[in-house]
Amino acid sequence: MSSLASALYARLHSSLASPSMLPSPPPSASIGSWKSIAQRAQNHRDETLAAVQPPISDITDIPQDSTSVPETILTADELSITESDPEKLITRMASGELSSVQVTNAFLRRAAIAQKLVNCVTELLPEAALGRAASLDAYLKEHGKPLPISTKEMINIAGLTCNAAFISWHDRVPDSNAHILDILLDAGCILYARTTQPQTLMHLETSSNYYGTTVNPFNRNLTSGGSSGGEGALVGMRGSCLGIGTDIGGSIRSPAANNGVYGLRPTSKRLPMQGMTATMLGSEHILPVIGPLSTSLGGIKLFMKTLLDAQPWIREPSLVPLPWKTAPQLPGSEKGKVKLRLGVLTDDHVVRPHPPIRRAINDIVSKLSGIPEIEVIPFVPYNHDEAWTIISSLYFADGGAEEKAAIGASREPWRPLSKFIITENPNVKALSIKEIWDLTIRRDEYRDGYARRWTESGIDVLLCPVGPGAAPPIDSARYWGYTAQWNLLDYPTLVAPVSKVLPTDVAETEYQPRNEQDRYNHQLYDAVKYANAPVSIQLVGRRYEDEKVVEAMEYLQEKLGLPWAEYV
Amino acid sequence: MSSLASALYARLHSSLASPSMLPSPPPSASIGSWKSIAQRAQNHRDETLAAVQPPISDITDIPQDSTSVPETILTADELSITESDPEKLITRMASGELSSVQVTNAFLRRAAIAQKLVNCVTELLPEAALGRAASLDAYLKEHGKPLPISTKEMINIAGLTCNAAFISWHDRVPDSNAHILDILLDAGCILYARTTQPQTLMHLETSSNYYGTTVNPFNRNLTSGGSSGGEGALVGMRGSCLGIGTDIGGSIRSPAANNGVYGLRPTSKRLPMQGMTATMLGSEHILPVIGPLSTSLGGIKLFMKTLLDAQPWIREPSLVPLPWKTAPQLPGSEKGKVKLRLGVLTDDHVVRPHPPIRRAINDIVSKLSGIPEIEVIPFVPYNHDEAWTIISSLYFADGGAEEKAAIGASREPWRPLSKFIITENPNVKALSIKEIWDLTIRRDEYRDGYARRWTESGIDVLLCPVGPGAAPPIDSARYWGYTAQWNLLDYPTLVAPVSKVLPTDVAETEYQPRNEQDRYNHQLYDAVKYANAPVSIQLVGRRYEDEKVVEAMEYLQEKLGLPWAEYV
Repeated sequence: MSSLASALYARLHSSLASPSMLPSPPPSASIGSWKSIAQRAQNHRDETLAAVQPPISDITDIPQDSTSVPETILTADELSITESDPEKLITRMASGELSSVQVTNAFLRRAAIAQKLVNCVTELLPEAALGRAASLDAYLKEHGKPLPISTKEMINIAGLTCNAAFISWHDRVPDSNAHILDILLDAGCILYARTTQPQTLMHLETSSNYYGTTVNPFNRNLTSGGSSGGEGALVGMRGSCLGIGTDIGGSIRSPAANNGVYGLRPTSKRLPMQGMTATMLGSEHILPVIGPLSTSLGGIKLFMKTLLDAQPWIREPSLVPLPWKTAPQLPGSEKGKVKLRLGVLTDDHVVRPHPPIRRAINDIVSKLSGIPEIEVIPFVPYNHDEAWTIISSLYFADGGAEEKAAIGASREPWRPLSKFIITENPNVKALSIKEIWDLTIRRDEYRDGYARRWTESGIDVLLCPVGPGAAPPIDSARYWGYTAQWNLLDYPTLVAPVSKVLPTDVAETEYQPRNEQDRYNHQLYDAVKYANAPVSIQLVGRRYEDEKVVEAMEYLQEKLGLPWAEYV
Repeated sequence: MSSLASALYARLHSSLASPSMLPSPPPSASIGSWKSIAQRAQNHRDETLAAVQPPISDITDIPQDSTSVPETILTADELSITESDPEKLITRMASGELSSVQVTNAFLRRAAIAQKLVNCVTELLPEAALGRAASLDAYLKEHGKPLPISTKEMINIAGLTCNAAFISWHDRVPDSNAHILDILLDAGCILYARTTQPQTLMHLETSSNYYGTTVNPFNRNLTSGGSSGGEGALVGMRGSCLGIGTDIGGSIRSPAANNGVYGLRPTSKRLPMQGMTATMLGSEHILPVIGPLSTSLGGIKLFMKTLLDAQPWIREPSLVPLPWKTAPQLPGSEKGKVKLRLGVLTDDHVVRPHPPIRRAINDIVSKLSGIPEIEVIPFVPYNHDEAWTIISSLYFADGGAEEKAAIGASREPWRPLSKFIITENPNVKALSIKEIWDLTIRRDEYRDGYARRWTESGIDVLLCPVGPGAAPPIDSARYWGYTAQWNLLDYPTLVAPVSKVLPTDVAETEYQPRNEQDRYNHQLYDAVKYANAPVSIQLVGRRYEDEKVVEAMEYLQEKLGLPWAEYV
């Protein structure tokens, strides 16, 4: 990058933090009034929405499936832009066919609509994003590849508040950008929207005392998932084509699955983690990761390659210096004769997935039986209940003290799923150093055991559910096993849409639950309640085989004609 | 490997655990008598020495420099074998020029001599090693590359006691081999000697209540270093050409430096760690690593490549799947025009190294001034005192409870350096989870700061001292900064010999110490006391640049004609 371009970038980065965009600082005496702080945050959000041009009017009589609303409001060009895959969009913008301003504005308008429909945005950044887009158009046509992107609120932006959905943290303002944003901005990204997250960041849904609940675009009675649920809903609404999420128990994959989009939980220590606002910083027992949600698999690859091409391990030495592999990773692919051994796990033997999940996986397996290049191998789960015991004992090793302090400081109410995962979770307690060491040994032994099982099975990648059902009704996402399993193992895991809940996916009436979690999950389901919800799958690989997992998904899609359902 | 060979290997592995080699189990009532347990361990060791043929007589009137004793006892063939570099030896054995039995027996005899001279062995394994060597000669000429190797006692061997130098752990018998041994045995190694380690494994020397003190081959008044000090002394005596050590604060590098041999502390998560007997298992705050000590740089590479070729990350998924890079790593080497930017740090600004260390590094720098391919860049240390505060606060996060329990259980006395690093260390206390998280954040911020300094300096690798002096007198290795610095940063670090203490390295009389540690170190030195001690250097690279560090050392040696001192 030339020094002119560098100087320009510096200005553009700093312009994100225009003071006019911040909520006015509250008098410290008002700290106790959590409602007034939340109201101020909502007012600020609404002001940023109001700055979008042409303005988006309020929407009344929202249908249960709100994904069809944008086409009644946006222009044909705006629809075409916002429904493009990111990898195609970036090419059209780099070539000058589309201007950055035009594309950014289309996404701002669609994000504003998404907010009015499903409540997924904490603020839009129209002034900074359009200013940056104009500069990119003017000066940088040949220097960068512009692309508008969105981000979960917890990713630090210099000069903007970052609160991790705790009311008491409302006035925390980082003085520098997250490492990941520096790289993406240098690569030409335009940041135009920030998205909602749940109180504590530890729900598989998205509800907070700032903004209430983010709902599912395909069925407003269901959750968008979480904790990156604002991203999931925004990308599901095509208010964004590429967004940044984080995942320590399913927080990228649950919203990707619930909103019918792609999401990757990469192996830890690949992508930059510097600059987040969250509790439990410094904890290494279970590592959070950052990763993409996108409307296309190409967007997932674009995200990974852009970040790894920047060699983030130089600035952040805790990362492993592994570039994104572009050479084929599937066995036999170098000779053009792929032979993929696909493990299939339909049920973790703890909580049985709902009918649409089992139907979708069984349909995939049937279709694969006619494809000689793919060998399907049933995979027997290895003590997944033990995995949950270990990981849920390691999450809040201080007994949830940081979360309790952060919630208590403003006297905001505990959201139901915050209670569920902390105060009602029998595995949460304040651990001693000895206990944490013992649990770490138990974790590593479990990981070793799983690696043995994997090796003995001979599989390349594993196909499995993303959860025990499609997006559940609000406040009922209480089984993390299908996603947290892979956090415990730190295996790379990719979510992709394959189907939707169909009226023919009828509930079983005769089922005898195995345990209390299974009973709870079983009684949640009926086909009407879950109508229209996306059904997704996970594809899992060994640690650091992120590229192989993405490649295997591309291969499966090509062979199977996935995704079966088109959403926009 | 054929199934015949597999079966044979299985038998050979199990034959290591021949019951006749174990100390007889003590009646549990005798647990309080630590002296009787230690005596039994020594008797066992002596019995294994007595089984070596032809026998090695006791040695009286040991000279202060005992490195010349072996040549008065061994045959010319035995001297030639044991003074060969491992990479040459393996070729001669694989070709049939030397038999495994002949080579193993030569090392057994020299190791027995080393034991009588410097007290570095916990047991020899003549029966198992010679039996295995005979089988390898008979069946495996074409299947493996045999090489006799030695190992620190803490590396688990199925069926043999493994006590981490705690008397109360004398009856711990692992039921399987350490992962690293399984790989090395599969590759054809012959395990013939186990070596001493200090009480707690946390000294930069080697003294225990089992075996007393391991002394330095070059000067019996000085320490062999530690905690892999038995390995260091045995390799220094050429009683082994390749041995296994571990390092969490300098435990490979201190003994390598003190005994004038090569030692590599690899980046963490590269080499297999499953199967060790130690305290603090499960602690992730500062990661111990396993690594080689060898009489040659070729031996270091052989060790790394053999282990990584076996893809240890499949069995042990905590490892990073990074094969040993054989392509050139130095800048410009792909075009045959290396341009090496060599950082030099002579003094960490906390404790000033003794005259021979400064003289040796200054001599290297002078010689380099005439070499255009190497640019010497003075490197300013970045808060090394802060690094020590962080790492020494993280080592014993339970306040040393495990060490106190392990020592207390037999009522064995605390060795002076155990007291120094645990009970007299102001940074050791039982931490809460919150404190460990805060220290982890502080550690990571320090690492990020160091990475910035490194990047700004533009260096490829860094040359620096291994300690604040050559091997110090017994019980005085009390400054870990020069080695622990790189454990905190997890940078790969290679030790190589460059010189010896010379009579002309006279102590400074006018020096004003900077602090108490510096004063203590300063008063230790005089040229007569330290006479003949090896002087070594460290070469350091960024995380995961192990190969580059080794290559840079080869390049320096070639350009400088190092090592300047030949020891055998």
